[in-house]
Amino acid sequence: MHQDALIDGIAADDSWLNERAFQFGDGLFETIAIVDGVPCLWDAHMARLSDGCRRLQLPIPDQYLLHDESLRLAAGRARAVLKIFWTAGRSERGYRRPSDVQPRRMLRVSQWNHPVRPAFWSVRLCRHRLGENPSLAGIKHLNRLDQVLARAEWDDAAFEEGLMLGQDGRVVCGTMCNLFLQAGDRLLTPCVRRAGIAGVVRGLALQIASDSGQVLEEDDVAIDAVHAADAVYLSNSLIGVVRVGRFEDKVFNLDVVEHPLMTETRRRCHRPAIRGDRC
Amino acid sequence: MHQDALIDGIAADDSWLNERAFQFGDGLFETIAIVDGVPCLWDAHMARLSDGCRRLQLPIPDQYLLHDESLRLAAGRARAVLKIFWTAGRSERGYRRPSDVQPRRMLRVSQWNHPVRPAFWSVRLCRHRLGENPSLAGIKHLNRLDQVLARAEWDDAAFEEGLMLGQDGRVVCGTMCNLFLQAGDRLLTPCVRRAGIAGVVRGLALQIASDSGQVLEEDDVAIDAVHAADAVYLSNSLIGVVRVGRFEDKVFNLDVVEHPLMTETRRRCHRPAIRGDRC
Repeated sequence: MHQDALIDGIAADDSWLNERAFQFGDGLFETIAIVDGVPCLWDAHMARLSDGCRRLQLPIPDQYLLHDESLRLAAGRARAVLKIFWTAGRSERGYRRPSDVQPRRMLRVSQWNHPVRPAFWSVRLCRHRLGENPSLAGIKHLNRLDQVLARAEWDDAAFEEGLMLGQDGRVVCGTMCNLFLQAGDRLLTPCVRRAGIAGVVRGLALQIASDSGQVLEEDDVAIDAVHAADAVYLSNSLIGVVRVGRFEDKVFNLDVVEHPLMTETRRRCHRPAIRGDRC
Repeated sequence: MHQDALIDGIAADDSWLNERAFQFGDGLFETIAIVDGVPCLWDAHMARLSDGCRRLQLPIPDQYLLHDESLRLAAGRARAVLKIFWTAGRSERGYRRPSDVQPRRMLRVSQWNHPVRPAFWSVRLCRHRLGENPSLAGIKHLNRLDQVLARAEWDDAAFEEGLMLGQDGRVVCGTMCNLFLQAGDRLLTPCVRRAGIAGVVRGLALQIASDSGQVLEEDDVAIDAVHAADAVYLSNSLIGVVRVGRFEDKVFNLDVVEHPLMTETRRRCHRPAIRGDRC
């Protein structure tokens, strides 16, 4: 009988090596805030996951089942982080998917373990630039080496986040956050059509803007625009909306009144919601 | 006691979900031909793996240990395929690597299970384009959604391979192969500085050219150049060097004499080699 697999020198079951998420990053994920035992912004996360499935040509998950399982894991937890993986299942070697892709769903809950962070974040500029590919931009797929390499550029507590540029030098996002710039009455966020992730809190801000008749522009953003902004914000599912106190050498004037759209977005992003509630 | 993870609805050990190769594609791989119980082009595979480690800032593996383990798996196999994964190890949620990254090595051998293929391949043009990122181009990392999506464009046996374009429309490679064009006396292969993988057989061809004073150009390649070529070749570790009979509607004249550099590369790529032998 031949041995087939060794993991760190030890004969191993190779079933995990057949997982396409492991072999190729062939899958999607969502990182979801749990508050009072309930996942926040559930519909927005599921909408992005479904969009990712369409873009990657994967079957769309049963969202009721995912919700039930999420509640099982979240039960009794005041604050926690839920990560949902939706993968292209297993296959042997080779990029070609099996004709009957059988996605696997993997849910894990972990502690809300962010280190204590200041109210106003210090942000650096990453040297590593995002790859450009409109076919993969916006969705939360499992090919995340760009973010890993950018986040590896600093290992101290002096900065909470780093901004990332696209290949053409425009600003796209942070390693784990979306970006908003306030300049006078204008509020804008970088477009994520060529690179970056369409964050659910970013989506919530766009939805609130649309519902309330406020203007939140999606546009190309030059690095100079960050330096010149009156106020800068970062968002993701876990931090909600955070204001930037410093970007490299630029210190922002924190007396500038926060844009009401950012305040409202922060207020709504961690409100526990039952399934079907919009936010 | 809280449940922490569910895989397809079943309470699960979450240790594999902590594997960074699974979470982010944070790692590298090599696919190596085994002939008569010995891995082929070993030094070339190890050189690319080491280059990948430098580019991804991962510790470089002990190549003697990998070779010993490869021989253990390959023993007694006349022809087989060895896949080596070298990952960034485990961590909890978050792009940030632990300060003491402990890579994991995973080796798996599988059957030389290519379907019977014609001597001259039929090749199509993929619609899905490669992302562009000079920071990740050339190395064989685990972020391979581009190849997966391109390979998902056809599911019949009419084509053995598909060519992929970069964002700017130039030809870079196939989904699993490098490309060579013969035009008169000229032989060229697309450069892989912005996208694509620097294949070990491609590297062997460049080395043979350099050693023998022949010219193999690395250059940007327009799609028209493929149609206009006198002969077209594909290469990878398993197929060696294969000649293309058809690209989309273009049928190539197989009476054109094969470039001697391609013949020599084919001859040398599956020669079993002990470690330290160059090829």
